[in-house]
Amino acid sequence: MSSLDAIRQQLLAFRDERDWKQFHTLKNLIISLNLESAELLELTQWKTDAQLDALKGDPGFREALRDECADVLLYLLLVADDAGIDLLDAARAKIAKNAARYPVEQAFGSAKKYTELKEAARKKE
Amino acid sequence: MSSLDAIRQQLLAFRDERDWKQFHTLKNLIISLNLESAELLELTQWKTDAQLDALKGDPGFREALRDECADVLLYLLLVADDAGIDLLDAARAKIAKNAARYPVEQAFGSAKKYTELKEAARKKE
Amino acid sequence: MSSLDAIRQQLLAFRDERDWKQFHTLKNLIISLNLESAELLELTQWKTDAQLDALKGDPGFREALRDECADVLLYLLLVADDAGIDLLDAARAKIAKNAARYPVEQAFGSAKKYTELKEAARKKE
Amino acid sequence: MSSLDAIRQQLLAFRDERDWKQFHTLKNLIISLNLESAELLELTQWKTDAQLDALKGDPGFREALRDECADVLLYLLLVADDAGIDLLDAARAKIAKNAARYPVEQAFGSAKKYTELKEAARKKE
Repeated sequence: MSSLDAIRQQLLAFRDERDWKQFHTLKNLIISLNLESAELLELTQWKTDAQLDALKGDPGFREALRDECADVLLYLLLVADDAGIDLLDAARAKIAKNAARYPVEQAFGSAKKYTELKEAARKKE
Repeated sequence: MSSLDAIRQQLLAFRDERDWKQFHTLKNLIISLNLESAELLELTQWKTDAQLDALKGDPGFREALRDECADVLLYLLLVADDAGIDLLDAARAKIAKNAARYPVEQAFGSAKKYTELKEAARKKE
Repeated sequence: MSSLDAIRQQLLAFRDERDWKQFHTLKNLIISLNLESAELLELTQWKTDAQLDALKGDPGFREALRDECADVLLYLLLVADDAGIDLLDAARAKIAKNAARYPVEQAFGSAKKYTELKEAARKKE
Repeated sequence: MSSLDAIRQQLLAFRDERDWKQFHTLKNLIISLNLESAELLELTQWKTDAQLDALKGDPGFREALRDECADVLLYLLLVADDAGIDLLDAARAKIAKNAARYPVEQAFGSAKKYTELKEAARKKE
């Protein structure tokens, strides 16, 4: 059992002790995942990259980041559980898909989307 | 090494082969995490809970869900890596924090926030 | 001068009195717009449609809705101002574009995207 | 009748011709508003402030910005209509509330939240 799976089981026990599954429709869980992602984004609001680099060493800021990252992961585990998705398998498969979409020779040093890369490659031919 | 850590290492290798670290400021990574969460939300747009329950058995919908869940996890791993956060530790600590915020006897069967639960408990006294 | 334009001018004066333009890059404004949209979404968290219908009559809920809707509009005005966009013109043009994408005879009573409608129309031929 | 109100009426007619009100629950409309805000955010993904400043002069980028801003406004109008909110009144009231929260002498040149400003003012006393 992976550590992520141990957390998943702890989380489901936490949920069931409180009888919360009744609120956890797929849509509600995904909404909550979005709200937690937004709380993470709020930590960066109005801040420059330099300010954020400095804040990474601030204990209060670090704890806030840690908590919001954890909240995103916990809702993601609940979404995946509800949909019967194995997150680790899904991540491995997605890295492989991305590797095919972004061949090193086209994507090196470029922030373009794969649809733009294809278009650029097509024009070059 | 946990399986999640193996994926993290694969992901960092994927990033470095493409020289993408230069784009991965904390703010940019969190923006991308939000965009992927929104793509997951888009899969539920205009759908009722009953329609979503039916779609969970649809191969095309399942693959879309899997891919978007994976994208959220991959950006979350990059955010955590950039901030020096151990995601599994953070998740364990957050479950403990939530357990203290949501005591079973107050939170059972209730979708109230812990701030509302406290208020309700205060009024009862 | 439209009423929306009067509000825009009031808002720019509010901003300039506080010397806040320096923080208002396009990216920062759009991030803030997303955060306000998320706060609006948070008002619906865990609530069913029936519960939300009932809450529409609750003064506290109504005020929260009003405030969050206002925040979204205010940031949208700042985004549009920064980008030199006339919001009313943009909205009129977008309604016309949507009317072309969603012909009444195809879109009537359907929640499908225009890309799906096109595909469905193509198959029928 | 303000121009915004004219657009609102055009939009409601557009909706009713397609019999779409049935999908427009408050929650669904707010989800769609969030999705459109995210599409606006996507236009800034991986871009620096300098790149975005340059792109503001690019016709394709401007059109994309215009369209996404319009989509946000259109969904905001539908949310406000569903909740019986007058957007212009709400915006005027919110500017007044913000003016009280952010007194010029405390907020000048500062990106702090009003909760932080209060705390800072309290400490000074």
